[in-house]
Amino acid sequence: MYDRTLSFADIREAATRIAPHVLHTPVMRCAHLEKTLGAEIFLKCENFQEMGAFKIRGASNAICRLADDIAAKGVATHSSGNHGAAVALAARRRGIAACVVMPENASAFKKRAVSEYGAKIIYCESTMAGRKAALAKYVAESGASEVHPYNDLAVMAGQGTAALELHADVPDLQVIMVPIGGGGLLSGTAVATRALRPECRVIGTEPLGADDAWQSFKSGHIELMEHPDTICDGLRATIGALPFAVISEQVDDILRVSDETTINAMRYIWERMKIIIEPSSAVVVAALREGLVEVKGMRVGVILTGGNVDIDHLPW
Amino acid sequence: MYDRTLSFADIREAATRIAPHVLHTPVMRCAHLEKTLGAEIFLKCENFQEMGAFKIRGASNAICRLADDIAAKGVATHSSGNHGAAVALAARRRGIAACVVMPENASAFKKRAVSEYGAKIIYCESTMAGRKAALAKYVAESGASEVHPYNDLAVMAGQGTAALELHADVPDLQVIMVPIGGGGLLSGTAVATRALRPECRVIGTEPLGADDAWQSFKSGHIELMEHPDTICDGLRATIGALPFAVISEQVDDILRVSDETTINAMRYIWERMKIIIEPSSAVVVAALREGLVEVKGMRVGVILTGGNVDIDHLPW
Repeated sequence: MYDRTLSFADIREAATRIAPHVLHTPVMRCAHLEKTLGAEIFLKCENFQEMGAFKIRGASNAICRLADDIAAKGVATHSSGNHGAAVALAARRRGIAACVVMPENASAFKKRAVSEYGAKIIYCESTMAGRKAALAKYVAESGASEVHPYNDLAVMAGQGTAALELHADVPDLQVIMVPIGGGGLLSGTAVATRALRPECRVIGTEPLGADDAWQSFKSGHIELMEHPDTICDGLRATIGALPFAVISEQVDDILRVSDETTINAMRYIWERMKIIIEPSSAVVVAALREGLVEVKGMRVGVILTGGNVDIDHLPW
Repeated sequence: MYDRTLSFADIREAATRIAPHVLHTPVMRCAHLEKTLGAEIFLKCENFQEMGAFKIRGASNAICRLADDIAAKGVATHSSGNHGAAVALAARRRGIAACVVMPENASAFKKRAVSEYGAKIIYCESTMAGRKAALAKYVAESGASEVHPYNDLAVMAGQGTAALELHADVPDLQVIMVPIGGGGLLSGTAVATRALRPECRVIGTEPLGADDAWQSFKSGHIELMEHPDTICDGLRATIGALPFAVISEQVDDILRVSDETTINAMRYIWERMKIIIEPSSAVVVAALREGLVEVKGMRVGVILTGGNVDIDHLPW
């Protein structure tokens, strides 16, 4: 559908398209964090977003823009996380079928999130090959449209609407920071920021145990990582080709943090701010608290990406 | 200092006095809860308040209004919970000493909250008599002013400022609901509501295992409860004489909920809203979910009182 890269017009169109389906989430501040860092830190709470994560933005944009006859055949994806739930919810809102391929060993917590929104679940082997095969089989049989979690310009455009809102609500940001998994959010954030506030630094953060984006950013081409090892289940994906094309040109830096500092940062936000964020959101806070980026005296925007945590299995 | 009951003027004065020291907390909504109940539910997030609970309102008002020579001798209270931390913080802001008498067996979590704000802690036996004796001894020796957690018109007036904000932010409430422990918040809420919106029902909720307020409300005089048994550590107090004088005249009903439904309600808010509330806040949500009050089609205000939870010891 696209043979080009992500544009700011795509993001603005996405914002209009998905407005009825997503929340304009609030920005919160944490006095203790700001005092510690000597900076103004604006935390955009996508944990309060519909289905608990920013992922509904991209899924809604991709699903809303399907033509009626295509949409009628339903949508499908493979995901063990928030994207699956996002596709399920966006499809239900459009009144079409959704199928999510999940590994058999996915947690009950994650299965519940997807099935609660009415999607069909197909279980598969717990390998990337197993997932892809099961999805391909379903798509071939059903004619459903695949909604990729990040390697899709419509998804990237949808994710970019979070930064659009943040820049609108908080003018004059000097740094904007988001986590990086497959790259949908970071690429959308970069394009929105370059258009709205070119001098603002755009920084991604990822777990040390899944630092394929950092490696790719440094080498200039996509480095695969077969066995990511991190508690941040939302950030295990390998960066996609479409997001990477944007990120390699428009992002200023990618930082890496250990799971230990991420867990400490997650706990810090829970205790200080009384809000629930998931580990994948906490990486950015971890990078700030570790001093990996110079922010003293600056205005810094952070997207807290989601709050879907299994509270029966906390990492501390 | 007062030989009268709480007035609306007290609450308005308190609001002006404490404005520099407290946050005007946001109101949040929970789509799932509203759909389930068929009502508009406006949740005022005092869990986001300074030190994590509404208690800073009353403590700030009581401490700010002390004359300089009296204040110079410091303040003291006995508390194993949020009031102790609130007194500690309000005293630090005023630049005076604070002492909090706590039972030796108080949790490390609670001790940390008080000591973090710079108060002196005096440990005592874990009985009400032991607490009172230790506090009286300290007050006699130091000349410090006691700041009672609820049986004090200045404290009650401060707590009433939360309802003042809620009515200002959400016009035309038909029901307003808060938890009841010692009665400071409920009495302040009742006086504010009677002045601003006389037809709005004012309802307290307390745990079945500490239902002295309910018993007192029914009998018309204060019923003591020697051994309250509830997970809601903020609601174990016996209702005070000053709050009871207001509550018995101006409150429409007091509801009771089991700890089990309270824990379920707390979990529900964590999972659905991604915000952290403590058990004492969850009693109101529990009462709503249990259908103990008719709210269908109505606009309902709820004060979520605090979010100070020891996340290493969750009740599920």
